[in-house]
Amino acid sequence: MPRTIPSTPRLDGFYMPGEFEPHIGCWILWPERPDNWRQGAKPAQKAFADVAAAISRFEPVSIGVSQAQFRNARHLLPPDIRVVEISNNDSWMRDCGPTFVINKTGAVRGIDWEFNAWGGIDGGLYFPWDLDNLVPLKVLEIERLDRYKAPIVMEGGSFHVDGQGTLLTTEECLLNPNRNPSLSKSVIEQYLIDYLNVEKIIWLKQGVYLDETSGHVDNLCCFVHPGVVALTWTDDRSDPQYEISACAYDILMNATDAQGRRLEVHKIHQPNPILISQAESEGVDSVDGTQPRQSGQRLAGSYVNFYIANGGVIVPQFDDPHDQPALQTLQSIFLQRKVVGVSAREIILGGGNIHCITQQQPNPRREAENPIVSIV
Amino acid sequence: MPRTIPSTPRLDGFYMPGEFEPHIGCWILWPERPDNWRQGAKPAQKAFADVAAAISRFEPVSIGVSQAQFRNARHLLPPDIRVVEISNNDSWMRDCGPTFVINKTGAVRGIDWEFNAWGGIDGGLYFPWDLDNLVPLKVLEIERLDRYKAPIVMEGGSFHVDGQGTLLTTEECLLNPNRNPSLSKSVIEQYLIDYLNVEKIIWLKQGVYLDETSGHVDNLCCFVHPGVVALTWTDDRSDPQYEISACAYDILMNATDAQGRRLEVHKIHQPNPILISQAESEGVDSVDGTQPRQSGQRLAGSYVNFYIANGGVIVPQFDDPHDQPALQTLQSIFLQRKVVGVSAREIILGGGNIHCITQQQPNPRREAENPIVSIV
Repeated sequence: MPRTIPSTPRLDGFYMPGEFEPHIGCWILWPERPDNWRQGAKPAQKAFADVAAAISRFEPVSIGVSQAQFRNARHLLPPDIRVVEISNNDSWMRDCGPTFVINKTGAVRGIDWEFNAWGGIDGGLYFPWDLDNLVPLKVLEIERLDRYKAPIVMEGGSFHVDGQGTLLTTEECLLNPNRNPSLSKSVIEQYLIDYLNVEKIIWLKQGVYLDETSGHVDNLCCFVHPGVVALTWTDDRSDPQYEISACAYDILMNATDAQGRRLEVHKIHQPNPILISQAESEGVDSVDGTQPRQSGQRLAGSYVNFYIANGGVIVPQFDDPHDQPALQTLQSIFLQRKVVGVSAREIILGGGNIHCITQQQPNPRREAENPIVSIV
Repeated sequence: MPRTIPSTPRLDGFYMPGEFEPHIGCWILWPERPDNWRQGAKPAQKAFADVAAAISRFEPVSIGVSQAQFRNARHLLPPDIRVVEISNNDSWMRDCGPTFVINKTGAVRGIDWEFNAWGGIDGGLYFPWDLDNLVPLKVLEIERLDRYKAPIVMEGGSFHVDGQGTLLTTEECLLNPNRNPSLSKSVIEQYLIDYLNVEKIIWLKQGVYLDETSGHVDNLCCFVHPGVVALTWTDDRSDPQYEISACAYDILMNATDAQGRRLEVHKIHQPNPILISQAESEGVDSVDGTQPRQSGQRLAGSYVNFYIANGGVIVPQFDDPHDQPALQTLQSIFLQRKVVGVSAREIILGGGNIHCITQQQPNPRREAENPIVSIV
């Protein structure tokens, strides 16, 4: 335990459910490295703890932490959060963690993708990534779940599914030569079909402007419900994000999902440009080979990088005039869930946001407590 | 999770069951440190893997392993053994791990004793022991079990219980000033009563000759069943072990247990003296502050250091003429279990044996599959 299954989820009748379906709980990793997180990661640890506490109001949270940070994490986290030792190179459970798949009889398995720190030695964000690459196995060992080892570089944040056969992704990321240079688009599609068990892939072009993940879809656009998506947006035509979001909007409005439905698209206006301050930059160790955090650099802020929990939605906040409107719009979409904002500047400073640091573990044995009703 | 319960097991109706009662599984730590285990711990890892595989025929086994050894351990261990990351200073789960207690309604909790590496800075076997001291918490976090934090230095190998109110221990260990110098015998007894929920303590004098744990009872004597004990023995009156075993025998034969029963005592003849060879000694790193492993040093070999699993008994073997008689005697005592010998020289070279490296997690919801019937 876990067995490594020499098959694919699709062949075995397993598929990835939507994030809005019931969860057993949520997995997070604890931030630590001082060459990505300012001030020895102390502000980030506070922010991660706040996210974990917010999610734990809705579902059990488990946090993986290095030996060195175990006692500190245990001290900073609420007692009802489970803290387990899982070494890592950085704290992005969405991307290095397992992707869980389920079947109709209530079984859960995990997909263990190859991970290369968003680009390997050709533009990856740090070196090495050996510990990150073991995170899926370690999670599945703890949970005693069987594993599929997928022979393709893939990050959980680079796709979203509706659990009914449709997958959203971006060409910028999945076709980037720093991920799987030897694989054609059709071969990559076949891996998505085989491992996530989808029928239809909607390809958006680019992710959020300056997103250092090579344009993960989870910062740009996600499923709220089958047939319903949220898209980060700006009304400012002079902002480079405008063309990206407008292009995605056009693709989405002209798409049909695997069930033949047109998509309902909700625009969520982005925060104003978020720039790294000099003080913030100076708090980060400079290490050759790790993504620099330079003063004045614009960060890829987006409210779409939220996490959907059982009965809740945890949304990044940036102390920005668009914070409240984003919460209000999301609450109007997620009528049956409580929408909760959590201050996330310290997370975006590290290169991602709430969705990027979380990974839901589905509960196929539970009926949805809170069916999502969207406003049409 | 886990909550730390500010009470004691006795007050809450929890008690430690006998090792012969049903288990959920067994916990082990993975040997690694080259200043205790020869040849970079490679022979010991093989021996630990053999023990784990033998136990896993009878019940699930979980192995805690450092980040550095995770992949190697996963490779060397059978796939049905769960491997989880748990840092440690050395690999003696019996002594640094949690002691599990249960109640009559089927709940399980863990006791987290203070651990000081068998003597702290006054004769302890290595320094530091900070990671070992976190092992109980880490196990209980993984298992989502509540915890009692016991404010006393105690090792799991220093006591045995019959699950019916009786505890066996040794004065050499529990009254050693390098454990709890400020506590009197009666205060130490009260901790045993409060945390293990026993009524009667049978004090033996000394543990096995040259046992570096300061005489843990688990290398000398254990319960096979309520009212029945196994005692390591020698017929050689010139051997220093003779007086120790004879003294223990007298005490046991004159004792009654918590239920008022006389004890049935089974003698298990010890192996011939086991001496560290020059080659074995030379394979161990010499580090100031760590117990030396000198050529010619006699080791505390004993067959009583076995592990009782669900339906099985895993017994150390030393390539010694007494191996087979020990297995035969134990099989005659454990009529309803399969007695399995495992080569254990590489474990005794590190200072303990099969019982010392294991920790059972009881299953209070399961009836015993294999009631133990002893020959009277």
